[in-house]
Formats: sequence, C-alpha cells, structure tokens
Amino acid sequence: MTELSSMALRSGRDGLFLLDQTVLPNEERWLAIRNPDEMIAAIKALKVRGAPLIGVAAALAVGHYSQTERDPERLRQAIKALREARPTAINLMYAMDRLALRIDTDKSCETLLEEAEKLLIEDQVLCQKIADNGAELLREGDAVITHCNTGGLATAGRGTALAVIAEAHRRGKRIEVYVDETRPLLQGGRLTTWELEKLEIPYTLICDNMAAMLMNKGKVQKAIVGSDRIAANGDFANKVGTYSLAVNAFYHRVPLYVAAPFTTVDLNCKTGAEIPIEERPDDEVRGFGELRWAPKKSPVFNPAFDVTPAELVSYWILDKGAWSLNEIRAGKLKQELGG
Amino acid sequence: MTELSSMALRSGRDGLFLLDQTVLPNEERWLAIRNPDEMIAAIKALKVRGAPLIGVAAALAVGHYSQTERDPERLRQAIKALREARPTAINLMYAMDRLALRIDTDKSCETLLEEAEKLLIEDQVLCQKIADNGAELLREGDAVITHCNTGGLATAGRGTALAVIAEAHRRGKRIEVYVDETRPLLQGGRLTTWELEKLEIPYTLICDNMAAMLMNKGKVQKAIVGSDRIAANGDFANKVGTYSLAVNAFYHRVPLYVAAPFTTVDLNCKTGAEIPIEERPDDEVRGFGELRWAPKKSPVFNPAFDVTPAELVSYWILDKGAWSLNEIRAGKLKQELGG
Repeated sequence: MTELSSMALRSGRDGLFLLDQTVLPNEERWLAIRNPDEMIAAIKALKVRGAPLIGVAAALAVGHYSQTERDPERLRQAIKALREARPTAINLMYAMDRLALRIDTDKSCETLLEEAEKLLIEDQVLCQKIADNGAELLREGDAVITHCNTGGLATAGRGTALAVIAEAHRRGKRIEVYVDETRPLLQGGRLTTWELEKLEIPYTLICDNMAAMLMNKGKVQKAIVGSDRIAANGDFANKVGTYSLAVNAFYHRVPLYVAAPFTTVDLNCKTGAEIPIEERPDDEVRGFGELRWAPKKSPVFNPAFDVTPAELVSYWILDKGAWSLNEIRAGKLKQELGG
Repeated sequence: MTELSSMALRSGRDGLFLLDQTVLPNEERWLAIRNPDEMIAAIKALKVRGAPLIGVAAALAVGHYSQTERDPERLRQAIKALREARPTAINLMYAMDRLALRIDTDKSCETLLEEAEKLLIEDQVLCQKIADNGAELLREGDAVITHCNTGGLATAGRGTALAVIAEAHRRGKRIEVYVDETRPLLQGGRLTTWELEKLEIPYTLICDNMAAMLMNKGKVQKAIVGSDRIAANGDFANKVGTYSLAVNAFYHRVPLYVAAPFTTVDLNCKTGAEIPIEERPDDEVRGFGELRWAPKKSPVFNPAFDVTPAELVSYWILDKGAWSLNEIRAGKLKQELGG
C-alpha cells in the first residue's frame, strides 16, 4: 500500500479520505470513505466530483474494499454499483473497466488496490501533459474565461482546463481568469475561485449570464473548459452552461478549447447525441444549499450537463496533443486512441 | 386624493405603500414610504424595481411629500435626488421630468399628487396596449422564454413582456413559459414564478445557462423581455443576462421581442453605447441574501444591466404598435415618439 494524496483525496494505511467539496470554500472537511456504498453516496451528493477524480476515487474505494473482501463476485458487484453512480462522466466507466479486467487476470484480487493507485498516478501524469500541451496556446496578457471547476479538485492531479491556465501562469505569462459561477451548484464561485487564490492567479468572479457582455466588450481572448465525455466526432458533454458559453464564444469569435485526458474520450459514442445526460433534483435550481428562493413546488428543468457540438470548438487539448477542428474532423481521436 | 393600488404599490389616504420585492415569494410584506428619502432607499435596495414601476413609485413619493411640503425648491430637490437613485432606467427620469414641469406651471404645487396618480393610471393603460400589440405575435402552443421580471411587480399595470404572455393566455392560446432565474438577484426565480402561479400559466424554472440547451433542442419558439432604456436606433438595455439570451436566440433562430412603454425610449441616446450601466455591490455575486458561497474578498464584476444591439431583435412591442427591425431601422421610434 502506497501513501498517496492530492488536493481532494488521500489514500494510505489510514484508509481513504475525500475533501468534502460541498462545503468548500467555507470549510475544509475530510470524510473517511469506509466502503463502496459510502463512495457511491459521496459521488451522488457531489462531495467528490470532476470526471477524472470520480474515476480515480471510485477505483480506490474498490481497492481499499479488496483489502478485506477478496471474493471476486462481491468486488464485481461493487464495481457495477459504482459504475452507475453518475451516468455522464465516462472516466468512471474507464476506471471500473480497468479494475474488472484486473479481477479477470488476478483471481486472488490481491493487486486491485495497486491498480487503483496506478490510476491515480496516471491521472497526475495525464494532467501534466494536458497542461504542457495547452499552455502553448495561451498568450501573454490573455484573459481566459472558464466554467465549472477543472483543477486539483476535479482530478487527481493539477487538473485539465485549469491546469492549462496554471501552467501558462507558471511559465511567466500574464494571464487573468474570468470565472463563471456555474449555477446551480456554483463549482466556479466556490471551487475555482478557491483554487485560483491558492495559485495566486488573478481572477474575476461573474454570473454565468455576464460572459456574453464581457466578450462583446473585447475583454475575453480565450474560453477553456473541461469535459465529462468526448464523442468520436469531437462533440463533448460538460457541466450545464458550457454550451451557452460556447455559442457566445463562437458568436464573438473567441476561441473555445476543451481540455481532458484520453480517459474522457468515448469512441463508442459516435456523436454527442449518444451521451446520456444526468438530470438532478429540482431543489438545486429552487435555491442553494438549505436556502430556497423559488416557490416550493415550482416546476424545474435541471440537467447536470449539456453537449457542445465540435463545430464550436477550436482546439481539443488532450494528453497526447492539442488538435484543431480540422484534425478532429479527419478522425484524429480514433487514430490516436482507437487501440 | 384617489385610492389607487397595483400588485406592488398602494397609494391613498393612508399613505404610500410598497410590496417589499426582496422578500418575495417567501413573504408578502408591505412597507410604508413616508418621504422621498425612504423611496430612494427602497429603490437602491430593489425593494421596489422594474423600470416603469420605479418611475411611478418615485412620482407618488413626491406627490405624497407635496401634501405637507409646498416649497417648490424643496420639492425640486427631492425630484433631483430621486432622479439619481438608479441611473439606467429612463422611465424614472421621464416621471421626474413630468413632475418638474408641473411645478413650473403650478407654483402652489397643489396638483403634484394628482400628476403622479395620472402617471400610475397612464402606465396601466400603456401596459394593456403593449399586451394587446404583443399577444398577436404569440401562437397557439408556443413555449416562450423570458428573463428577469416584467409583470405586475415591474409596472403599475399588468406588465410589459409578461403582460404579452398573460394576454395571449387570456385569449385562450396555449402558452408555456421558461423562466430564467436571472442571477444575481433572482427576479425570475422569485418574482416571475410567483406571478405565473397567480396567473395559472404553466412554467418551468431554469438556470440562465440552460436556455441555450433548450433552444438547441427546439423547445423554445420565442424569447420576450422588457427593457430599462431603448435607444433611438433600437438598441436596448435590460437586466444583465438579456444580451446572452439574445445571442443564443439569434444563433438558434428564435425570434426575440422586447416589450416596453414609450416612457422607456430615450431618443437622446443615439445608440446603446450611450446608455449608462449601473454597477452593483460585489456581495450580490458572492452569494444571495445573507448567504455567501464565494471566498470573502473574491474580485467580482457585477453590472446590473447589459445592452442588446438592435440587430438581434425581431420585434419592438410598444404601446403604439409592434415594429420590426426594418421599421426601427427606417426611424420608426423617432417618427412615432419624436414629439
């Protein structure tokens, strides 16, 4: 067993712990995850979130479970249940497939934790490669708008879109960030602001509906977001509101970049239309936390994600490279990741 | 003195009262407004809001003040101070100009309250004319998206954009409404939902960033909003987020209508670039009400309004008629309202 830690996750002899992302930035509270069921509950409640991080965290939950439970069937059941905890992020399915494969080849199930630990380390490496590939696309003086949270709280490493910004900043480029607050769960207003303060990168918090006005005034040079699933044709699902940002970026000729590891690509989805979109509880839109401001029974539409078509994207920044729309249209994803 | 009342305002022998819009829909609390200073505070705190209603309410505050204060200079000072309570909504300036003009012709100031009451009645008539002109543009089965609040809480009458929807519904057309919650102050989530429930019109509440996704799915046939100031060329200011909605409507070929009385038109502004935009306190974006979710000192951008250029609008629905982009470009506003 290795002692591992990231911004939002700790794994080692003491067990598995998550930083509860629902109470950030007001409180930094760590939760012990003692079994797969507790991890499923944490995923559903968004105590742990971010497509790559969910995959790694779920894998570690199985890994720790395998320290006391060595029955392959029980472990397969846990994997199946975790797989269904969130439907949109494909990284979770990728991580669960890796563990299931390990059970196939190691009936003793002794190496499951090792495999999960490997997924964590791999994710950290993928994040750094994304950061390196993306940092070159940002220029001195750029103001970059981002949506939701895509940093150390969304992955086991430095992040995806936010890591690109952080790497450009680390290389000495002057970058400022506009942060969409990202209703309804305010991952931008709560988490991205918190990470940017730690990174000492200048930022301005806005409501999601103000992005268009900033673009109209020429205040935004780039838009960069993460993804929960990228289809074979380059369409991608991400936190709801990404599509609205993408349309506005396109209209104002602001290039939009999507940053993600290869574990986010799902070649089995031909287009974005095939990506399942999770709908979440009405009360998330009727208020925030314990506060309710809308009428109690107001009818609500609350998809957790939306799909942005490839034609609105300028670059796909992956760990293997940064690819343009023309390259994606020429089948780059399949060529590079198709086995 | 006449006994007058609207959804959010009462004026008569007992004095002047406002329905406190900051505590709706949880509580229906009426506030006595005993002098112009209290009205200024109520306007700044958005206890009373909506461009047409602010104009009428401010006029009535002067009217009631004139019952005990007959010095024209003191009254002119009150008018000047009220005029500066909110910079974007031009209806306030229109109402204050009307009262100042009355002082010019009636040095006794005995008829100021009467003039203010007249403004209230006029606004009610204007609302009905807007509703009639706009209702014809909505079709059986239309799903209409709207932003902020433009109903009985925003005017002395039935409203502007919301009155168009209500009138189409009253005429028996099946209409459903998508309500943008309208961050940061949630006038859609708190007020428009409340009004639509009273009107028994089916609606669905969404976060502002979900409108684009609905349009992409073909679920929205029309977008209709109010305005705080319309420039001579048809550009208009409205609650922040309107421009983002307008860009998305344009991209998805959803016609956008703006509904307002002639008191919202400012022919002295040649284009939207000349409309002053109020910026509001940072804490409005850092949270809601007493709740804060963003880091305490997070830098914030918080304009109360944005400007939508005429080329994104399909129809301007005014009390004098509904005019297309071609008509507006041909100078319709100046021809009809230029004195």
